[in-house]
Amino acid sequence: MNNTKYDLSTPVAQRIAASLSRQGMMNHLDAQLIRAEEGLVEVALPFSEKVTQQQGGFHGGAIGALGDIAGGYAALTVLPEGVEVVTAEYKINFLSGHQEGELQAVGKVVKGGKRIIVTTVEVFHLDPKGKKSLCAVMQQTLVPVPQTY
Amino acid sequence: MNNTKYDLSTPVAQRIAASLSRQGMMNHLDAQLIRAEEGLVEVALPFSEKVTQQQGGFHGGAIGALGDIAGGYAALTVLPEGVEVVTAEYKINFLSGHQEGELQAVGKVVKGGKRIIVTTVEVFHLDPKGKKSLCAVMQQTLVPVPQTY
Amino acid sequence: MNNTKYDLSTPVAQRIAASLSRQGMMNHLDAQLIRAEEGLVEVALPFSEKVTQQQGGFHGGAIGALGDIAGGYAALTVLPEGVEVVTAEYKINFLSGHQEGELQAVGKVVKGGKRIIVTTVEVFHLDPKGKKSLCAVMQQTLVPVPQTY
Amino acid sequence: MNNTKYDLSTPVAQRIAASLSRQGMMNHLDAQLIRAEEGLVEVALPFSEKVTQQQGGFHGGAIGALGDIAGGYAALTVLPEGVEVVTAEYKINFLSGHQEGELQAVGKVVKGGKRIIVTTVEVFHLDPKGKKSLCAVMQQTLVPVPQTY
Repeated sequence: MNNTKYDLSTPVAQRIAASLSRQGMMNHLDAQLIRAEEGLVEVALPFSEKVTQQQGGFHGGAIGALGDIAGGYAALTVLPEGVEVVTAEYKINFLSGHQEGELQAVGKVVKGGKRIIVTTVEVFHLDPKGKKSLCAVMQQTLVPVPQTY
Repeated sequence: MNNTKYDLSTPVAQRIAASLSRQGMMNHLDAQLIRAEEGLVEVALPFSEKVTQQQGGFHGGAIGALGDIAGGYAALTVLPEGVEVVTAEYKINFLSGHQEGELQAVGKVVKGGKRIIVTTVEVFHLDPKGKKSLCAVMQQTLVPVPQTY
Repeated sequence: MNNTKYDLSTPVAQRIAASLSRQGMMNHLDAQLIRAEEGLVEVALPFSEKVTQQQGGFHGGAIGALGDIAGGYAALTVLPEGVEVVTAEYKINFLSGHQEGELQAVGKVVKGGKRIIVTTVEVFHLDPKGKKSLCAVMQQTLVPVPQTY
Repeated sequence: MNNTKYDLSTPVAQRIAASLSRQGMMNHLDAQLIRAEEGLVEVALPFSEKVTQQQGGFHGGAIGALGDIAGGYAALTVLPEGVEVVTAEYKINFLSGHQEGELQAVGKVVKGGKRIIVTTVEVFHLDPKGKKSLCAVMQQTLVPVPQTY
């Protein structure tokens, strides 16, 4: 069930939802599109056994994966149809560990360009009582490529 | 089935295997310990629907997660019992996309220290015919913390 | 001549000014403290022959060095007297090239902590006509250490 | 005086030397080309008042700048005449602080490509008695662009 308060029926949101539905890993982890506007995308990931590390909290790999798609899809919103992005690289700082609740990653385009797109991503944790904490920050470089499917 | 050619009965390998078995995400993705020596750890991840992105290749999130644990466990090999590591940050460059086969990540300690440990990680792709390609490089910063479980 | 509009007579600004005056490289490049508050520091660097690269624009090394001290001094503002910081690592994305005018780097603390401080830095270019452009973004990890001088 | 043991009369070394001589900042800091081969470049920087931080050691900004040109010029060696590189981003970990002596940065191409080149750089410190220590590691992303001068 999608409980977002944002409109996901727009062309940009539909385009991203279509791509996200093709990501086996993200479907598997139950990632969900929350918001998609020009230059900004938000995605969420619920806590489950599938995303824990050895202490029982969210795995850095899950936080990184969610941040990566938030930034990547933010980049996609500034590109024409028929063009995709690949992540050239990212860097992520983990600020605090969390269990339960969900992660919400907000990606924003800092600089669009023909050769390179740069984004920053903030990953928040929302605990079951609704308390929100910044849990990671990411800086990412993407390259536009022709869509091949 | 564990088909590594390295000895995993050593104390250092047993310590890492015990930690890895506690990682819900890594178990879920079928990550496997291949090699553990002082300052070096290798882990592998098979291709499956659980790790794909929208073009059908390995997801950057899976590559990053595997690299993160290779580097983190390499750091653990230079720390005494009762001490764990948390990843402060990492940066990963993706060099090429791959389907099928498996990923092998080799993490090495570049600099150990009381406050900070720095590692580098190479992630290789092994295709079903045995061809090996470097598919990502990572640089990572870890912080030693007391083990709490 | 210091033409900042911010108050540099506060204890936190004086502490940073004292440290900055000890940096041979920054004095040499004519870096200047502009603003210092809890969790935020701004520094500037004028264009000169001493900071150019092969095309005549600001050298990435100068942009990186300025960003590094903006973030490092922002971290210092949240630490007690007698404690310093060392940069464990940073990552910088260069967004656009610029000549003439000056650079202004604004560093902000994202997460303070006993073991690790994380900052983000925005580096702007101000052209001679007063036009301001974001020219680089940085994400940085610092470690508090005892002051030894 | 150039005291390198490597041949700097080759076309690739001459090409890099010509570019380096145009860098105001690097000339100013007395950076020197040591070695240039396909996929590998080494540059050095002597200790001086012009490169110190507040504790009297090499400034992170100088270490980063030297690493940046080592990686950038390594990338240049795999590109045809008439093409230059710009640094899209880099990430650097500082491993230890040093005074006196000189820095030697060795940049290597990890992955060449039409859109993106990835390098890794090791920065060593050589003390006055000849003792060599690894003092920083860098991972860098570059973009080929047409040469405009």
